[in-house]
Amino acid sequence: MTERTRLTRKPERGTDDPAVLHRLLDEARVAHVAFVRRGCPVVLPMAFGRDGNRLFLHGSTGAGAFLASGQGLEVSVAVTLLDGLVFARSAFDSSMNYRSAVLFGRAVPVAAEDKEHALRAVTEHLMPGRWDEVRPLTGKELAATAVLELPLDEVSVKVRAAGPGEDRGDGEDRSVWAGVVPLHTVAGIPERSPLTDPTLPLPRSVTSLL
Amino acid sequence: MTERTRLTRKPERGTDDPAVLHRLLDEARVAHVAFVRRGCPVVLPMAFGRDGNRLFLHGSTGAGAFLASGQGLEVSVAVTLLDGLVFARSAFDSSMNYRSAVLFGRAVPVAAEDKEHALRAVTEHLMPGRWDEVRPLTGKELAATAVLELPLDEVSVKVRAAGPGEDRGDGEDRSVWAGVVPLHTVAGIPERSPLTDPTLPLPRSVTSLL
Repeated sequence: MTERTRLTRKPERGTDDPAVLHRLLDEARVAHVAFVRRGCPVVLPMAFGRDGNRLFLHGSTGAGAFLASGQGLEVSVAVTLLDGLVFARSAFDSSMNYRSAVLFGRAVPVAAEDKEHALRAVTEHLMPGRWDEVRPLTGKELAATAVLELPLDEVSVKVRAAGPGEDRGDGEDRSVWAGVVPLHTVAGIPERSPLTDPTLPLPRSVTSLL
Repeated sequence: MTERTRLTRKPERGTDDPAVLHRLLDEARVAHVAFVRRGCPVVLPMAFGRDGNRLFLHGSTGAGAFLASGQGLEVSVAVTLLDGLVFARSAFDSSMNYRSAVLFGRAVPVAAEDKEHALRAVTEHLMPGRWDEVRPLTGKELAATAVLELPLDEVSVKVRAAGPGEDRGDGEDRSVWAGVVPLHTVAGIPERSPLTDPTLPLPRSVTSLL
C-alpha cells in the first residue's frame, strides 16, 4: 500500500484480494485513464486487456495525443462495475453496489516484439475466442497500432456488496420498501453486417456472449 | 470548442448536438472524475446528476480528499456508455460502439442553499421517482454531504454507432461472420432488505427499472 492507494473514505470496503481485482478487470470492458496535460487533468475511456500483472491499454477514443507519448506517462486508471442500486429508506442512505479498482503507475509503450501479444490480450478480453477466428494481424497493422502497458503494482480495490444499512432502532419508516436492484450487462441480438452471408452460423465468440 | 475539446482522433465521430450529450448523461450511472494531486493524475468513479447545464458530482468511493477541496478543483469528467461490440473480419478492424463525453472545468462545492436541489438531481438520476417516496433529508444529513458542480461548457462528445467497416473490395475473408453484438444494462430481480415487510409492494421507483 502506498500513500496514493490508502483509502481515506470507508476503508472497510477495501480489499487486497488479487482474485477480486482480476475478476473485476476481466469482467469490465472499459477503463478510464487519467493523465496530466499541460498541468490539467484529462480522462479518456480506453479498451484494455490483462496478462498476469500487466495491464494493456488501447486507445479507442480520442487518445491520439495520449498514445503518442513515447516516453511513458504517469497515469491513473479506474475500472468500475456497477452491480446494483441500493434503495434505502432515505435519500441520504441510498447507495450503489459496485466494484472499483484505481491504479497508479507509469504507462509505457509496449515493445514492438510484444505488441501482438498485447493486442491479443485486449481482443480476447473484449471478445473471448475471437483472436483465433480471424486472420492474423499484418505487419502494417501492428506498426499502426499503439498499446501502452503498466504493472498492476499500485492499486486500491473497493467493493460494496450489501443491502441498505438498517437496524431495528434506526427510527426509519418501515412502510417504505428498501432493498437492492441488481444491475447486469447483457448482450442483445447479434446484427450481422451487410456483407455477411445470412446462412453463416454465429461464431463461438458471439454465441458465448448470449 | 477549445483546444482541449478538439478531437484529434476520428473527429468524424464528434457531435455538437446537446440532445446527444444530455441523453448520454441521463442514461449513464457513473462518471469518472480526474484531478491532479501533488502533480499526479487521480481518477475516481462518482455518482452524478444533471440540471440543465449544471453537472453535480457526489463522491461515492474514496473521494474524501477530493471533496474536501473547498476552493474548487480543475477536473476532467468522462461519462461513457458501451453500446456494443463490433466484430470485424480482423482483430485490427474490431471496435466498440459507444457514446462518450469528456468534460473539462472547475468543480466547486455546491452552495449550502443549493445542496438539497443538487442531491435531489443526483438521487433522481440514479433512482427516478425515489426522492418523493422517502422522507426529506435532515439538516444534519445535508451538512454532512458534499456535492460539487461544474458547468457543461467545455465538453467533447463522441459516438460510434455502426457496423464493422467493410466494403466489397477490402479483400477480407467473407466466411468469417461480422456484425455487432449490442450491449444493454438491465435490472435483475429486486432483493428486499431483511427489515422490509414481504407484503409491501415494490415502489414505482423500482418497478420502473424492471
